[in-house]
Amino acid sequence: MQLVSLDDIRAAAGRVRGQVLRTPLLPAPWADSDRPLWLKPELLQVIGAFKLRGAVNALAALGERATGQGSARQHVVAYSSGNHAQAMAYAARQLGAPAHIVMPEGTPQVKVDGTRRYGAEVVLVPLAERESTAYRLVDELGAVLVPPFDHPDIIAGQGTAGLEIGEDLPDVELVLVPVSGGGLASGVGTAVKALCPNATVIGVEPELAADAADSLRAGHIVEWPAQDRARTIADGLRAQPSELTFAHLQAVLDDIVTVSDDEIREAMRVLATGSRLIAEPSGAVPLAAYLYRADDLPRGRTVVVLSGGNVDRAMLADVLG
Amino acid sequence: MQLVSLDDIRAAAGRVRGQVLRTPLLPAPWADSDRPLWLKPELLQVIGAFKLRGAVNALAALGERATGQGSARQHVVAYSSGNHAQAMAYAARQLGAPAHIVMPEGTPQVKVDGTRRYGAEVVLVPLAERESTAYRLVDELGAVLVPPFDHPDIIAGQGTAGLEIGEDLPDVELVLVPVSGGGLASGVGTAVKALCPNATVIGVEPELAADAADSLRAGHIVEWPAQDRARTIADGLRAQPSELTFAHLQAVLDDIVTVSDDEIREAMRVLATGSRLIAEPSGAVPLAAYLYRADDLPRGRTVVVLSGGNVDRAMLADVLG
Repeated sequence: MQLVSLDDIRAAAGRVRGQVLRTPLLPAPWADSDRPLWLKPELLQVIGAFKLRGAVNALAALGERATGQGSARQHVVAYSSGNHAQAMAYAARQLGAPAHIVMPEGTPQVKVDGTRRYGAEVVLVPLAERESTAYRLVDELGAVLVPPFDHPDIIAGQGTAGLEIGEDLPDVELVLVPVSGGGLASGVGTAVKALCPNATVIGVEPELAADAADSLRAGHIVEWPAQDRARTIADGLRAQPSELTFAHLQAVLDDIVTVSDDEIREAMRVLATGSRLIAEPSGAVPLAAYLYRADDLPRGRTVVVLSGGNVDRAMLADVLG
Repeated sequence: MQLVSLDDIRAAAGRVRGQVLRTPLLPAPWADSDRPLWLKPELLQVIGAFKLRGAVNALAALGERATGQGSARQHVVAYSSGNHAQAMAYAARQLGAPAHIVMPEGTPQVKVDGTRRYGAEVVLVPLAERESTAYRLVDELGAVLVPPFDHPDIIAGQGTAGLEIGEDLPDVELVLVPVSGGGLASGVGTAVKALCPNATVIGVEPELAADAADSLRAGHIVEWPAQDRARTIADGLRAQPSELTFAHLQAVLDDIVTVSDDEIREAMRVLATGSRLIAEPSGAVPLAAYLYRADDLPRGRTVVVLSGGNVDRAMLADVLG
């Protein structure tokens, strides 16, 4: 299987420049002195999550390949109720492509509104018809389906966050990154291992959705029932890797550690009071590992990727209260 | 009176580089379409506020002037219970100067601890003895007192935020900046007016501490009793300009508008849910003007300076709840 390379990620960096925030590394003065900590705040992206990197890269790469095929604008389709939906909507508007986002009925209105705000057409269907509706739209419109993680262009796009870490802190010793479908961990791990071969890259999962940790140990994909994965508060980490992302995780992750939902909540509080940032539960997962799995981690200069911050106010007030 | 110039601010930018975060301009997708909004998140500075810019510049400039006077390390003294205390403590540690911070008894422990964390000696005294203690330390130690705003080096340091705005968004049409002692507004206004002569720069104050608004209208400093200024929730905006900063405000501000405490709280909520940032009340004041004083402001590309984010968790939970 062909894995995404550093060159692919560098090409992605060229495509996303100016469309995606180059997030700064923020030093955390409340960290332990023998393992200084920097935060990579992807929650500052305009849509609130790293997903914009992959979406912009995928659509821009699509545009490059379509050059010479006439000027008809390529329609794009995605199915997602999460950050990928808003990322696709925003990226499509930036690049001038009509976007159709299929969402399950019952998706919180705030997420539907957020996606429509960027001009995407939202198609609400019963959960079971989500995929079939997306493929029907692809056929009807001659559109391209952009998956949330199972694609080299998505992995390369997410990897631009790792490229920035390697450029900004070349002597980084440990990078902690959340794992769900594995697009972010695959891309960041690939870039960091290529630029900083001595750095350890560790994935972090919720205990309640630890399918990737099980899979890495077993050496093959271990499926967890969706209803089990749905238990964690970290609603962005309930997907599981594809064959493509799992092959990357095997190649670039040194380990996966897991954290409890209580530890995730506490990490959200530490971020809010210590660094004035609001992470969604999924975004706080790697910080929970830094705080509560110190014995399982190498000491030294550490970067934690805060993947997203889209949390509704009621949950936030509950966590902070 | 000699005012701080763009050249002074450029010199300050050279001194603070690498010591202070060059904060990105964050687009706010929830803004009105005819007046797009960018946030300048000074709350992301390591000490949680812009004050680090002035403190680092003042201490570095002090070091330059002392060159050739032997190698004895210059002690520095400040009196503050707020963000200036932590800024001075952090800046002094970075530059290798012993710092002594005089704080009134009763200062919240979190602020005392935050200042000590950076290695400063905290001297707790009754409120009435704060200044006299600081001057005694200056005499005893041969130290230098660094004031929170009433000094050209502080104004030039804070102005580096304005320099960055002018560099990153040269066609900015409106900059909203909070006004208290006036160091930030003086520096930012000076830089923005020099780089973007067509931009409007408007200061924002709480209605409950609107002494600078009164002063600007009267054409001379109008004093408000300290107990009146103490009413606003925006605890960072209770100081009043000095002659030096007032001269700058007269020169560079087009106007000052005021906002209510309820509007400040609502602006904190909008920031948290819309942009995943925690501002302290003072830091949210200019956004409150954007949200609730639209009729008093020119339309067009707007930058709001989010000056700080040091708010305790109880207040935060109360505001967000």
